[in-house]
Amino acid sequence: MPFVYSRTIRFQDTDAAGVVYFANVLSICHEAYEASLAAAGIDLKTFFSGSEIAVPIVHASVDFFKPMFCGDLLAVHLHTTQTKASEFEIHYRLFGDSNLEKALSQAVTRHVCIEVKTRSRYSLPNFMHEWLHHWADNQTAAASPLTD
Amino acid sequence: MPFVYSRTIRFQDTDAAGVVYFANVLSICHEAYEASLAAAGIDLKTFFSGSEIAVPIVHASVDFFKPMFCGDLLAVHLHTTQTKASEFEIHYRLFGDSNLEKALSQAVTRHVCIEVKTRSRYSLPNFMHEWLHHWADNQTAAASPLTD
Amino acid sequence: MPFVYSRTIRFQDTDAAGVVYFANVLSICHEAYEASLAAAGIDLKTFFSGSEIAVPIVHASVDFFKPMFCGDLLAVHLHTTQTKASEFEIHYRLFGDSNLEKALSQAVTRHVCIEVKTRSRYSLPNFMHEWLHHWADNQTAAASPLTD
Amino acid sequence: MPFVYSRTIRFQDTDAAGVVYFANVLSICHEAYEASLAAAGIDLKTFFSGSEIAVPIVHASVDFFKPMFCGDLLAVHLHTTQTKASEFEIHYRLFGDSNLEKALSQAVTRHVCIEVKTRSRYSLPNFMHEWLHHWADNQTAAASPLTD
Repeated sequence: MPFVYSRTIRFQDTDAAGVVYFANVLSICHEAYEASLAAAGIDLKTFFSGSEIAVPIVHASVDFFKPMFCGDLLAVHLHTTQTKASEFEIHYRLFGDSNLEKALSQAVTRHVCIEVKTRSRYSLPNFMHEWLHHWADNQTAAASPLTD
Repeated sequence: MPFVYSRTIRFQDTDAAGVVYFANVLSICHEAYEASLAAAGIDLKTFFSGSEIAVPIVHASVDFFKPMFCGDLLAVHLHTTQTKASEFEIHYRLFGDSNLEKALSQAVTRHVCIEVKTRSRYSLPNFMHEWLHHWADNQTAAASPLTD
Repeated sequence: MPFVYSRTIRFQDTDAAGVVYFANVLSICHEAYEASLAAAGIDLKTFFSGSEIAVPIVHASVDFFKPMFCGDLLAVHLHTTQTKASEFEIHYRLFGDSNLEKALSQAVTRHVCIEVKTRSRYSLPNFMHEWLHHWADNQTAAASPLTD
Repeated sequence: MPFVYSRTIRFQDTDAAGVVYFANVLSICHEAYEASLAAAGIDLKTFFSGSEIAVPIVHASVDFFKPMFCGDLLAVHLHTTQTKASEFEIHYRLFGDSNLEKALSQAVTRHVCIEVKTRSRYSLPNFMHEWLHHWADNQTAAASPLTD
């Protein structure tokens, strides 16, 4: 079961071509990530201010299959996969309200846990493991030996 | 009774000072405007693509009383006031989840209805009157004779 | 003499109505503010991370006279006015490349200097006085007694 | 020789972690793309309003090697590669002012030319060929037979 985030496309998301500006699709995915963290009881203000550890994004990619318009209601489906002791990926599929068969867009973000002071890799803390487990796509996870 | 729009502050809304970037507060107000239009059954895609008439913003102002942080849940209270046959204002008050007595921020946007082809003023259409009436702050409206 | 900041309108600045999204005009003004600080030798990274003092915006307003399109080259004219020992305003006028007589838009931001720890008002430091003086609109400044 | 676009990191580009928000790196790349089109004499307003043909982005990816801070001056290096008669890729490398040896970030966007009315693929027009040739990374282009 993925985490599902509902999101209406806003005027601000669009550009002069009349559809969502490409980079904003990744921002909408990041909102889904934030919502999934909050649903796991993680305090977003503390988490994203990153005082001791942080999990910056090291890679992102996104595919666009169909344009999205102002007022469209999206369902963002989110899956997690731990790829190393200090690293995980999030996979997103964005569906229109009326069609859950064919995604409008899909994206991936890869995150690495670091100690802020040294900026070196750091094993993911327990509260992140719980969040990762909850939304894990098991088959993908099984294929990844958790070593750095 | 105002229209109330619930909105969680997202990481993207913030800046390097750790709080919501000032201009994004106006974007959040505009989201509340869009939600109030949708609640009145107005199709946002058609409305904002402005093929025949449009209601561009001619003025906006915003006051900041307290900073807002990632993860904060806001309640945006929205009131409308028709100021001329072709013009209206929207007043916004943004409250934190835990305190409905003192606003974190307040804002105003003034909108003028125009015919897109000529860009000259045009009386607000009926569907906008219905929306305006629904969320009107009556006392303010009473003070405004509706002439251009 | 105002500070002049040149800025091309980007696709990202626009919305589905085909013109610059209203709140982005304030962001463009803030870019001009940042450029004027950098021109005075102020380090932006340190200044905006606000470790000891900060100058958050407490009020902003903006008027829109003509729409701006992707690719348009703007000249943003910036004037400063110190209004109190701990407070200043910046006035912006945005002109199209081809017409310096009639502004496309104008805006104001009001900033208050605070001590970050206590969030109480704090007199503007010397390096800000130098910046303020350099771009001050003298006539406006003369009308403002500098008391809090 | 790549096209080089100079860009100062603005406060608005940053987030509460104190560095550029990940999706904004792609927006900065798109600005470089726009600047390269304008340098080739292409009218951006007409190009991006897409009345007859349009070249929407169908894929984007980005890698983050080092964080970027407010005030940092970037040099975005842009290369083009035509991959099909109706398709091209743009490769971007973002360098800090002081170090042209190790990129801070790199990105790719893939664009498909379509006829707007039917949304079906359409061969790239001549003015796009000229732009593509000018900034082409020849070795990459040679590997791509131009068939759809």
